[in-house]
Amino acid sequence: MTAPKPSEIAFLPFVSVQNMMRMVNTMGAAAFMRDLAGYIEADFRRWPEFDKTPRVASHSQDGVIELMPTADSENYGFKYVNGHPKNLRDGFQTVTAFGVLSSVANGYPVLLTEMTVLTALRTAATSALVGKYLAPKGSDTMTMIGNGAQCEFQAIAFRELCGVNRLRLYDVDPKATEKAARNLAAQGFEIVKCTSAESATEGAQIVTTCTADKQNATVLTDNMVGAGIHINAIGGDCPGKTELHRDILMRSDIFVEYPEQTRIEGEIQQLAPDHPVTELWKVMAGDAPGRRSDRQITLFDSVGFAIEDFSALRYVHAKVRAGAPHDRLDMLADPDDPRDLFGMLERAR
Amino acid sequence: MTAPKPSEIAFLPFVSVQNMMRMVNTMGAAAFMRDLAGYIEADFRRWPEFDKTPRVASHSQDGVIELMPTADSENYGFKYVNGHPKNLRDGFQTVTAFGVLSSVANGYPVLLTEMTVLTALRTAATSALVGKYLAPKGSDTMTMIGNGAQCEFQAIAFRELCGVNRLRLYDVDPKATEKAARNLAAQGFEIVKCTSAESATEGAQIVTTCTADKQNATVLTDNMVGAGIHINAIGGDCPGKTELHRDILMRSDIFVEYPEQTRIEGEIQQLAPDHPVTELWKVMAGDAPGRRSDRQITLFDSVGFAIEDFSALRYVHAKVRAGAPHDRLDMLADPDDPRDLFGMLERAR
Repeated sequence: MTAPKPSEIAFLPFVSVQNMMRMVNTMGAAAFMRDLAGYIEADFRRWPEFDKTPRVASHSQDGVIELMPTADSENYGFKYVNGHPKNLRDGFQTVTAFGVLSSVANGYPVLLTEMTVLTALRTAATSALVGKYLAPKGSDTMTMIGNGAQCEFQAIAFRELCGVNRLRLYDVDPKATEKAARNLAAQGFEIVKCTSAESATEGAQIVTTCTADKQNATVLTDNMVGAGIHINAIGGDCPGKTELHRDILMRSDIFVEYPEQTRIEGEIQQLAPDHPVTELWKVMAGDAPGRRSDRQITLFDSVGFAIEDFSALRYVHAKVRAGAPHDRLDMLADPDDPRDLFGMLERAR
Repeated sequence: MTAPKPSEIAFLPFVSVQNMMRMVNTMGAAAFMRDLAGYIEADFRRWPEFDKTPRVASHSQDGVIELMPTADSENYGFKYVNGHPKNLRDGFQTVTAFGVLSSVANGYPVLLTEMTVLTALRTAATSALVGKYLAPKGSDTMTMIGNGAQCEFQAIAFRELCGVNRLRLYDVDPKATEKAARNLAAQGFEIVKCTSAESATEGAQIVTTCTADKQNATVLTDNMVGAGIHINAIGGDCPGKTELHRDILMRSDIFVEYPEQTRIEGEIQQLAPDHPVTELWKVMAGDAPGRRSDRQITLFDSVGFAIEDFSALRYVHAKVRAGAPHDRLDMLADPDDPRDLFGMLERAR
C-alpha cells in the first residue's frame, strides 16, 4: 500500500526569497511599491473594519522577536519579525521576517511568504504614501539620514509616489553612504553625498531619518528643521529608540499609524501620553486634514503597523493567484476523514 | 550575471506533513510520544525559566485563530493553530497547526514544521505524562468519551506511560467509536464499545473526555465519577466550552498547566476565580504533591499551553539535526552585505 498523497487543500502556496525577488524584478520595485501603496491606502481607508492589537514582543538582551497579527472579516494575517542590531557584526541581518495569510472562515493558511524583502518594500511604500498626503507640493529633494538597508527603497518609493529625484545622503558610516549612492545613481537619481547631518538637510523639502542604533539618539536637532518641511521618521520604532530631538516634535504636527503602539515605540514616547496626534487612516479617509499650510512642519512618526503587513500579504496573495512564481508546501495535514488523523498516520507507513 | 544563490544561513529546515509522519512511523507513535513526554517533563521542571504569556486569540463567528509564543534564554517558539468546529462538515479539519522555533540570540528561525500531527502527539504525551503523576497506581482501564481525532493518540500514550491496555469507548456518533475501535484493536488494545457515557465509565481508573462541541456540555455527571478516579479532561479548552458538571469539579483536586490561561479556557471557568488549583510544573519539580490517596479524585483540566509546543519544537529540531527527513526553504534573505538588501534584489535580475 503506497502512502496517500496530500490533496489540493493540504498544499500551501509559499513565496521564497528568490521568488519574491523575481516577482518584484518582473515589474520593477517602483511599480511594485506603487501598487502595494494602493493596497495599503485601501486598507487604511477601511481601518475601523480591522481587529487591531499592539504587536506581541519577546525582548531579550540582544534583540526582540515580534508577532504582528491583524484580521478583517475575510482574512487573518500575521508577520514574524526580529530586530537584533548586533547581527550586522556577525554577518546576519538586523531584521528578518516572514508572514502568513489565512482564511477567517476556516482558519486554514492560504499563503506563506518571506517578508524580509517584502517588509522593506511595504515600509517604503507606506512612507511614500504618507508623503503623498503630507509632503509639500512639488517636493523634489529629500534628505536621507541613515543609508542602510531601507534607504534605496525609500528613495524609489518617494520618486514614484511624490516626484522626488534629488537626494542628499548622510550616514555616520561613509561606506553605507557609498553603497546607497552607488545603487541610487544607477537608478537615475541626482545625488549629493554629505559629510554631516546638518549639511544634508539643506534645501530639502522632505527629511527621512532611518538609523539603526537602539538608543535615544538625536539624528536631527531643532536648528536643522526649517518651516514647511515634511519629516519621515522611520528609525525610532521601539521603546528606548528615538531619532529626533524633543523640540522638533513640539514644533511639528504629528501623524501616526496606531496611537496605542506609537506612544510606546515611536518618537512620541518622549512626549506626554495625551500629546495630540492625528491618525493617518483618518487623513486618507478624508476625516482629518493632512498638510494645511506651506509653513507647517509635518512629521510621520513611523513604527510600522500590522495592517501594512496585512496589505502586503493580500497583495502578494493576489499576485500568486494570478500566477506569480511560488512553491507549494505540504504543511497542512489532510486526512480523508478529518476525525481519522491516526488512520492517516497508519496508512503512511 | 547569474542570480546569487542563497547561502547556508538563508535556508530554513522545514518538516512537511509527509516527513512528520515518516519521522513518527520510523520509531512508532508510542516511542515518539514517550521521548516527547521526556522533553515536556524537562521543560515543566524548569517552568520559571520561561517567558510565559496567554495565547493571542483572534475570534470570529465560526472559530478562532491563535498564536502561542513562549521563550527561554536560548530559543523562542510559537505555534499557529485554528479551531473551527464547523470545518468537519465541509471536509476540513477542526484544527490545523504549524510552528516555528528560533534562536533568541539572533532572531533567525531554525525550524518550520507542520504541527497538526505534532499537536495531536504532544497533547496525548502531556496527558499521559500527567497521568503518570496522578492516575491510581496499577491503572489498566481507561474510559474514552469522545472518539475523534485525538482519541487513538491518547490511548497509545497512556499505554506507553501508564500501562493502560483496556479501553471503554463512547461517542455520541457511533461512527466515531467504530473508527477508533478499529484503529485501536489493530494496536492490540482490549476494547469495549459502549452505548452511553454512563456505562463507559464503569470499572475504569482513568476517564478521558475529549469532545469537540463548542458549548457548556455535561459529558460527565456527578454520579458517574467514583472515588479514586483520575479524570483527563481534554475537550474543555476555550471560553464557553466545558465538558464536566460543576459538582465533579467541587469533589476533585484540580491540576492545571498555567492558571492564568486555564481559568479563562478550562473547566474551572465554571468556578470562582480563586478556587484552589495545583500547577503541574510544581508536581513534576517535586514542589507540590500529586495523588495523595486511593480515594482522591484527581482532575487534569487540560487546555494546552505554549510550553508543550515549545518542547515539541525542541524535540523535532533535535531529530532534524540528527538527520530526520526534512526540506530546506529559502525563506530568509541573505545579502552579502546585510545593509545592501537593494543590491541583492538588483543582482537577482
